[in-house]
Amino acid sequence: MDKSDQADPSKIVQHLLNNDPFSQWIGVEIEDVKEGFCKVSCTVRDEMLNGFEVTHGGILFSLADTALAFSAATYGRVALALDNSISFTKKSTTGSRLIASSKCINLTHKTGVFECKITNSSDELLAIMKATVYRSSEEFLL
Amino acid sequence: MDKSDQADPSKIVQHLLNNDPFSQWIGVEIEDVKEGFCKVSCTVRDEMLNGFEVTHGGILFSLADTALAFSAATYGRVALALDNSISFTKKSTTGSRLIASSKCINLTHKTGVFECKITNSSDELLAIMKATVYRSSEEFLL
Amino acid sequence: MDKSDQADPSKIVQHLLNNDPFSQWIGVEIEDVKEGFCKVSCTVRDEMLNGFEVTHGGILFSLADTALAFSAATYGRVALALDNSISFTKKSTTGSRLIASSKCINLTHKTGVFECKITNSSDELLAIMKATVYRSSEEFLL
Amino acid sequence: MDKSDQADPSKIVQHLLNNDPFSQWIGVEIEDVKEGFCKVSCTVRDEMLNGFEVTHGGILFSLADTALAFSAATYGRVALALDNSISFTKKSTTGSRLIASSKCINLTHKTGVFECKITNSSDELLAIMKATVYRSSEEFLL
Repeated sequence: MDKSDQADPSKIVQHLLNNDPFSQWIGVEIEDVKEGFCKVSCTVRDEMLNGFEVTHGGILFSLADTALAFSAATYGRVALALDNSISFTKKSTTGSRLIASSKCINLTHKTGVFECKITNSSDELLAIMKATVYRSSEEFLL
Repeated sequence: MDKSDQADPSKIVQHLLNNDPFSQWIGVEIEDVKEGFCKVSCTVRDEMLNGFEVTHGGILFSLADTALAFSAATYGRVALALDNSISFTKKSTTGSRLIASSKCINLTHKTGVFECKITNSSDELLAIMKATVYRSSEEFLL
Repeated sequence: MDKSDQADPSKIVQHLLNNDPFSQWIGVEIEDVKEGFCKVSCTVRDEMLNGFEVTHGGILFSLADTALAFSAATYGRVALALDNSISFTKKSTTGSRLIASSKCINLTHKTGVFECKITNSSDELLAIMKATVYRSSEEFLL
Repeated sequence: MDKSDQADPSKIVQHLLNNDPFSQWIGVEIEDVKEGFCKVSCTVRDEMLNGFEVTHGGILFSLADTALAFSAATYGRVALALDNSISFTKKSTTGSRLIASSKCINLTHKTGVFECKITNSSDELLAIMKATVYRSSEEFLL
């Protein structure tokens, strides 16, 4: 396929965010996009906490999953998460800045393995996720 | 420890939900609680979708993570998720009922392994999660 | 495809074991085979222990991975493990009987999710594994 | 605790290997040891293959699990794997050199998260593992 026929990684990611209501609710901001890489961020609000006044694990996962989906989409084809394994390493709470960076560490025609690290603004690791995606044949035409 | 000193599983779970803003935002309803088990549910809303008009993976994970936290808390001590591995098996969308059942499959003094299945109202599997928790010494006093 | 053209699940699994030197070294015995399911077993020997006189985690994983590969192959196509997540729940040692049962919990055209439990002869859970496989188009012709 | 009372990381790892029959069977060689880090290697033999003339997934996992156990032990206390998630990215076969590097990415008093990459001699990624360990209070006294 001619490289010029492919959608631009930044355009794909912006398009995905524009149409993704839950990532918008989280307040996802796009920090950086390259082929096989996406860095996004958000700020924890009171409504994102769990019963211990700590950021709900689901928020950390959701941000990481959005970063994953965006980074996998940069190759120009729709990709679906098959399996995500996340380890939680440090608590955060209201006002914390969450920064998730997902990068491809292996890509085949039909699958990909990605790693996503979530840090706070002091660059402390909050969580790390390893994920496997399935790459459909459907292309982004933007 | 005298069994009568322990908080009741249902009271613990209700207490956790009452103080958990994100689970409330998701619309979590408690369906069933036993020692080592918790079943919760919610209904997918438009604002929970991703860029493909499909329930965001973070919503499925969040519901499963809430079920996990609640089921782990039924033993009377605060438990923290260390590692969660989730596999996504079927799509859902606005209006879908999500039902997450988390049960303990192994418990030691300081750790526990849990499995959580998420189904829709037709009992089709949407996702399955395996998780490891760390059990702190802090007890629920309700 | 005509069902009669497909290889029989038991024949496929026996063929795989006959050609699998490491599973033979472990001493894998086939206990039960059905479409989407395989149960295998082995007995722990001294040379399978780690530095704590406990069965090496790699032995438990290897037996589970063999059960996984065999159960995935019962559908008649070559399948490759993409991601395996294993939780260790109980120790075993020399003389322990290890029994691994892998069953399919979700199957699509190109991928599958399997769960494998490893127990001892007292039916105590030693480990539990969740795995995702990629299904190639290559068929077993036996 | 006085640093001088602690066992040396290299001595701990050598002691573990000297007493670990399965790692010896695999042919594990210690390449590098630092606090929170261990690099080991081995060479694939015919008896380590599966039914497709490819290195059995259990061999890759076993080498990674040994690297994990050794790297976790460098802190001077006995550590047990709770949950290991491994993704397989490239095949290898007889004669391939397998090099596994495990490093700590988060450490608390009772738990640790480690990442282990397995490469071949051309530095191509064969597998990546993320693992959570439980740190017992038992110390190595060598």
